[in-house]
Amino acid sequence: MSQRTLIAVDWGTSSLRGARLGAAGQVLESRQFPRGIMTVAPGQFDAVFQECFGDWMQAQGALCLISGMAGSQQGWQEAPYCPCPAGFDELTARLLWVQADRLAIVPGLSCLHDDGLPVPQHDVMRGEEIQIFGALALTGLRDATVVLPGTHSKWAQVAQGRVTGFRSFMTGEVFALLSQHSILSRTLPADAPWHEDAFVHGVQLAQRTPSVLSSIFATRTLALFGSLPAAQHPSFLSGLLIGEELRAMARPGSTVLLVGSALLTQRYAAALHSLGLTSQRLGDEATWAGHAALAQELTA
Amino acid sequence: MSQRTLIAVDWGTSSLRGARLGAAGQVLESRQFPRGIMTVAPGQFDAVFQECFGDWMQAQGALCLISGMAGSQQGWQEAPYCPCPAGFDELTARLLWVQADRLAIVPGLSCLHDDGLPVPQHDVMRGEEIQIFGALALTGLRDATVVLPGTHSKWAQVAQGRVTGFRSFMTGEVFALLSQHSILSRTLPADAPWHEDAFVHGVQLAQRTPSVLSSIFATRTLALFGSLPAAQHPSFLSGLLIGEELRAMARPGSTVLLVGSALLTQRYAAALHSLGLTSQRLGDEATWAGHAALAQELTA
Repeated sequence: MSQRTLIAVDWGTSSLRGARLGAAGQVLESRQFPRGIMTVAPGQFDAVFQECFGDWMQAQGALCLISGMAGSQQGWQEAPYCPCPAGFDELTARLLWVQADRLAIVPGLSCLHDDGLPVPQHDVMRGEEIQIFGALALTGLRDATVVLPGTHSKWAQVAQGRVTGFRSFMTGEVFALLSQHSILSRTLPADAPWHEDAFVHGVQLAQRTPSVLSSIFATRTLALFGSLPAAQHPSFLSGLLIGEELRAMARPGSTVLLVGSALLTQRYAAALHSLGLTSQRLGDEATWAGHAALAQELTA
Repeated sequence: MSQRTLIAVDWGTSSLRGARLGAAGQVLESRQFPRGIMTVAPGQFDAVFQECFGDWMQAQGALCLISGMAGSQQGWQEAPYCPCPAGFDELTARLLWVQADRLAIVPGLSCLHDDGLPVPQHDVMRGEEIQIFGALALTGLRDATVVLPGTHSKWAQVAQGRVTGFRSFMTGEVFALLSQHSILSRTLPADAPWHEDAFVHGVQLAQRTPSVLSSIFATRTLALFGSLPAAQHPSFLSGLLIGEELRAMARPGSTVLLVGSALLTQRYAAALHSLGLTSQRLGDEATWAGHAALAQELTA
């Protein structure tokens, strides 16, 4: 590891987080601001960055890597997606240097789904790529299925340290839409506690139903027939949707790394476990570990 | 057909429609009111019915059959679901007579999905059952797959004139949620004209994608990569969702009857056609034909 001070920044849609990392990649200090890219006017990214991290950048030989939506069309500067298969080499070669050798935006990844149809079907991620490489660095794995649950969950295949492809699922967003705006919202209690049995029932049902567009209607009929107490319906619906992801993607034999908030990775671990699959959970530390591993690659 | 005057009423969530039918089942006169059950206070159903159809009920020997949500918990009187398999015999035996031999509510149907899980999984319909029996009466078929597209689409299997089972899909509602409230809504034009090629592309993609939760994200990346003009995205998204229904349910060899609005049945017919399947389309006439056929059964 180089002796340069690394400033790792994760600039997302709704929040801006940064960490000053030590020589071994350890977090010396971290900060978080409600300054996601949605709150920053065009042309103001430089100023917001200076305001939040200018003092850290004073350190001699400071190197700053920024991941996340800061590299999108609506961000600081657009960093074109790095196509898969992509490892550290591809990612470092495509860093977008805002200040030469000092401040770079990490590009997101893109991949092409091979569906044999005339219109090419791309998939994209921004920010998750750094978590994937961080998870590999932390676990020492070079082959894995890395799952990043969230509003738009990602399932990434990693072989020999490179992301060979991935797929996005609108699971979190669809759960929110159904809970807040659909007919189901009328009978779904807003503040029901988590119920693992109901969740696992949803996961199991998702494996045996011909379509998730049909199984989600089950939340309605469970209310009509009183087959499951209303307080358990949100957990059941969550199980149906996460279970649909697993039905499509989970395969025995692959090591599954779950990276994200403790709340979500716990649910995915329970869902995988109910299908007889094991997983390993990682949290925020994967983000900073990804920045550190990338910086090490740059300064090696 | 009996000589009794038949008053057929379809009392749904958001509208109230009625028709006075002649001896051969032909529509003599029809009316529509913005008095769906959502607009009627408890205890006021009788009064609203009198106001809308009281004059028709003066006819000697008038018989009125009411289908739809009027038989739900929030309706006039709750008519318990008639379990499948269900034909005319089961339906007539379970009519809920509000006035003896004069005014009855037609029950909806329920069925149990055989998924081998401990919590029983019911499916339900109210109002569509009368359209199914009407479609059979109009076509003379006794074996068919009857599809009723809509907010909550229904796919019903009919064997020897009886509904043996069915499945609901929240297709229309999910399309509305995604179009109006999701991240996709930011790039979906609200007033784009129908585009059949884009729709068929969505239908085709739905057959080759591991999950609809993933394919709907394609609408986002098509916008990012400009692979398909934005004006075609709503048709593409519609194709993805209707295509998901077809992936789950459409099988070669079965006669498919599409019953519903011309707009929707046309889309489903195009989707089926793109998969090499044929269908037959029916509209509103199926509702009144269903009432007429049921009345004939009663008075035979």
